Amino acid sequence: MVKYSYSRLFDFTSQILQKMGFSEDDSVSCARVFLAAELRGISTHGVIRLADYFKLWEAGRINVTPDIRVIHESPGTAVLDGDGTIGMLPAIRAMNVAIAKARTAGTGWVAVRNSSNFGIAGYYAMTALEHNMIGFACTNASPLVAPTFSASPMLGTNPIAIAIPAGQQPPFVADFATTPVTRGKFTIAAKKGEKLSFGYAQDAEGNPTDDPTAIEHGGSMLPLGGDREHGSHKGYCLGAIVDILAAVLSGANFGPFVPPMMSYLPLLDQKSGEGWGHFFGAMRIDAFMPAGDFKERMDKWIVTMRGVRPAKGQERVLIPGDPERENEERIVREGIELLPQVVADMIALAKKTGVIFEDK
Amino acid sequence: MVKYSYSRLFDFTSQILQKMGFSEDDSVSCARVFLAAELRGISTHGVIRLADYFKLWEAGRINVTPDIRVIHESPGTAVLDGDGTIGMLPAIRAMNVAIAKARTAGTGWVAVRNSSNFGIAGYYAMTALEHNMIGFACTNASPLVAPTFSASPMLGTNPIAIAIPAGQQPPFVADFATTPVTRGKFTIAAKKGEKLSFGYAQDAEGNPTDDPTAIEHGGSMLPLGGDREHGSHKGYCLGAIVDILAAVLSGANFGPFVPPMMSYLPLLDQKSGEGWGHFFGAMRIDAFMPAGDFKERMDKWIVTMRGVRPAKGQERVLIPGDPERENEERIVREGIELLPQVVADMIALAKKTGVIFEDK
Repeated sequence: MVKYSYSRLFDFTSQILQKMGFSEDDSVSCARVFLAAELRGISTHGVIRLADYFKLWEAGRINVTPDIRVIHESPGTAVLDGDGTIGMLPAIRAMNVAIAKARTAGTGWVAVRNSSNFGIAGYYAMTALEHNMIGFACTNASPLVAPTFSASPMLGTNPIAIAIPAGQQPPFVADFATTPVTRGKFTIAAKKGEKLSFGYAQDAEGNPTDDPTAIEHGGSMLPLGGDREHGSHKGYCLGAIVDILAAVLSGANFGPFVPPMMSYLPLLDQKSGEGWGHFFGAMRIDAFMPAGDFKERMDKWIVTMRGVRPAKGQERVLIPGDPERENEERIVREGIELLPQVVADMIALAKKTGVIFEDK
Repeated sequence: MVKYSYSRLFDFTSQILQKMGFSEDDSVSCARVFLAAELRGISTHGVIRLADYFKLWEAGRINVTPDIRVIHESPGTAVLDGDGTIGMLPAIRAMNVAIAKARTAGTGWVAVRNSSNFGIAGYYAMTALEHNMIGFACTNASPLVAPTFSASPMLGTNPIAIAIPAGQQPPFVADFATTPVTRGKFTIAAKKGEKLSFGYAQDAEGNPTDDPTAIEHGGSMLPLGGDREHGSHKGYCLGAIVDILAAVLSGANFGPFVPPMMSYLPLLDQKSGEGWGHFFGAMRIDAFMPAGDFKERMDKWIVTMRGVRPAKGQERVLIPGDPERENEERIVREGIELLPQVVADMIALAKKTGVIFEDK
């Protein structure tokens, strides 16, 4: 695999978005989120998605000159309409509104409708950190996950992210889909001809399966917990809570009505709102206690957890955010590795747009 | 098993609390929470706990005349000090403060320190419903759960509850520990001489085990997900988030420092704050959209999920809150069933205090 520098992929991403018609500012903002996914090692949400957005735009399904508006608000809350654009733009704006409201009201909570896939949730949650706030972000997504006892997918993998500042220690950053694993594991297993672990998927009748192509054949992903005996109803609760906050409360499409993000999939006949939904929050630390005291306490929390004796065969206990931060340190040093088919996508995009990708 | 009426157990509970020295008002408020657990079928948090609190009081570890105070606040947030009393009292007060703040700020968030076990989280979340608000409650608890890759218990089962109003449909009420099952399953399996499923517990070295007495032998419960392969790191994130919001942010003891609620267990040498911590929230629906519109949308969400084809061998898809509501309907009709040892505890409490329990 070839490795690419951050700046090269950043510039390329930003230029492709500008070719689609996004303003330079908006393109740069979005490129930051695409590249943040690469740096944190969540490449399933990185530049691999650029071609998908490009095709959506070609199909007339992405608005590149959106009028993102606050359509409802109170001192500590707001609802934003994303005007059918790429998810990063309303997400960044919403998080800024949440942070501004937290400054005066103590906390700020912003629901977004009429949006689309926003990349990694953790990016937005982390923007609160420099303001001495706890950040929160979640989103709904196209239906892939079956509620406990359902034969059909009704919810997205609906990720939740929370970022909590510390003092000397790096921040606590949790960012996770409400399923045992991501959809990406299915694709990789299928490509390698391997089976999945049980607890990840069910077939079209709702029977447990280890078939990584189950979703293509009418099956579903399972919620965190896997089966009822191991608490899948709790994973279902989490996915449902995200769907309700992000979409029912914002006026977006919820559950099975969330539109597909792939241009080759037809739009659904029925709607329950506008576009995808997200939900963001910012909690100002010193609305609860002096930020300095809190950060000292967080340091102690982190050091306490890190200090525990590891289970047999394990090296250490991790703090949420550790693996991604370590990925970032390595990737900044070594470069961003792209899969051959992603490189091929980039070259195709370059040819179509006239943007330079390969200069060798 | 003998069945008891709600009113009889309610009066008994309230009178025992009064004998301990709680005011009549406080006793009645607490009794409502104890009995709500019985009605919802969560008897592990019902009157079975009354004897534990009584013994804690005898040991001088419960303050029955607390001065519960707001020690920090902003327009949308507050921190309360529970003054070392029974958890229900600061919890009820905190939820009222959250609701009052949500009226003006849009949402209200209240962290509580210096508290103790508050019973079922769902009770508090549900108090928001009649105000057309979404209610949220969580609490930390004594360490029983090992973070992923840890050999030792560092977190409580740290439950999360969220209650969301609907229109014609009953409300959505999720209330769940951040572990696959509750501690109660361990006790029952041990009593019956049965093994646990794998994915619930590990031994003192951190190896997977099906031994229901693992905790007594230095083992731990596992977070939701069970093992790393099935997403236990996400259950660990959830338990950690609850611990941080409820305890780090409030000034309570966090993680392994949370004091035991059993009078026969010694207090810990080290502290990281005061008592147990809780965290509550109320989000006013019409700070996001007109409550009537939201409730119609929630009805549609609920009907959509209920309407899905069930998995093979299953009757129906449940909405969070359905099982507890159905329990309540049955228990109101049939009476509250108590285990023989719980009845024995009640009779012992009656003898000690002079309160009448058995009148047959």
